[in-house]
Amino acid sequence: MDSPIPTGIDVCLFRERILDVAEEHFRRIGHQKTSVDDMAVHLGVSRANIYRFFPSRSAINKSVCGRFLNRTILFGEAIADVPGPARTKLVALLQALHRERKSTFMRQKPIHDLITAATNENWAVNRAHNEQLVGLTEAIVREGIEAGEFGVKDSAQAARSVVKSFMPFYHPVLIEQGVRSGEDTEAGLLAQTSFIAAALSTSP
Amino acid sequence: MDSPIPTGIDVCLFRERILDVAEEHFRRIGHQKTSVDDMAVHLGVSRANIYRFFPSRSAINKSVCGRFLNRTILFGEAIADVPGPARTKLVALLQALHRERKSTFMRQKPIHDLITAATNENWAVNRAHNEQLVGLTEAIVREGIEAGEFGVKDSAQAARSVVKSFMPFYHPVLIEQGVRSGEDTEAGLLAQTSFIAAALSTSP
Repeated sequence: MDSPIPTGIDVCLFRERILDVAEEHFRRIGHQKTSVDDMAVHLGVSRANIYRFFPSRSAINKSVCGRFLNRTILFGEAIADVPGPARTKLVALLQALHRERKSTFMRQKPIHDLITAATNENWAVNRAHNEQLVGLTEAIVREGIEAGEFGVKDSAQAARSVVKSFMPFYHPVLIEQGVRSGEDTEAGLLAQTSFIAAALSTSP
Repeated sequence: MDSPIPTGIDVCLFRERILDVAEEHFRRIGHQKTSVDDMAVHLGVSRANIYRFFPSRSAINKSVCGRFLNRTILFGEAIADVPGPARTKLVALLQALHRERKSTFMRQKPIHDLITAATNENWAVNRAHNEQLVGLTEAIVREGIEAGEFGVKDSAQAARSVVKSFMPFYHPVLIEQGVRSGEDTEAGLLAQTSFIAAALSTSP
């Protein structure tokens, strides 16, 4: 019953195809209700063929989640690359990240649930994502220091503090609580980014 | 089978007694496994008598949690009342609050779980607790402004930003994640309080 097994470059394409099908199922019925059998039927291959590409079901969850998180980093990099004052860029970055998490919760609940699992269960893809966020932030902080906009000395430590201070507007559990409690998270984030920028402008 | 029903001032004492018994059960077997029957048997009264004091089972959970959160505010107030520089007090307050949450997670898991429920389900006692934390913080920020230590203008807004920036070290879900991932949360908090103090020292 199997389709022919791909070889060479097709291996990578087929791996991505499995993730596309998994993601499409996750979006529709959630990662917890999706079985490897569902994916196999959809792809016209056997379970065993899927397991040739992923050691376990949980590896598929993690890869789908990692792909989603990588897309966020890509648009974060695009914002960081725009020429302009560091403070403006930092505010734009944090706003875009917040809006994406909020809209994922409100419009793509199954993906939000996958990210919540990644956060609560401390998946490596989520740790890597947080490090990438710190890296993006650090690049902007360094630009601000070089331009004389920011007075902090240790850009790496400052970037960690920025990301920590931003957590109420990014952590999936806190996003969910903010939205459910009817909080005006956009106004809150604006006040928070002013506070963050103030911290960066001085040397502690 | 009932003990005599208390009247007058004894009503308040008996209400506290119910909460003591509830809390003792929660600490031992958790709030989700404790039944009103367990408490009634322990108190030598009927279920109906407990329901004369609390409209529902969930009202007992909320009152036990509220009592626990109030104790935290009491020691927070004690720290805020110590004479000394505002920055020193703010750091001491945040450290004490963080250590209490961490030790509750590590040594009193059932109470941690109760606080997690209060946070995730947005109980009124938890909203009130957060407002009290903001109030405590605002009092310290105002002292710092008066003493010329802090340069911020809006103490209420600054206090909200301080509490938001402190959330990674106080929110029960984030405390649990920090401890489980083996993070040095004390060192992280020290860096975060320096960042917070820097933000307060300038006028944004």
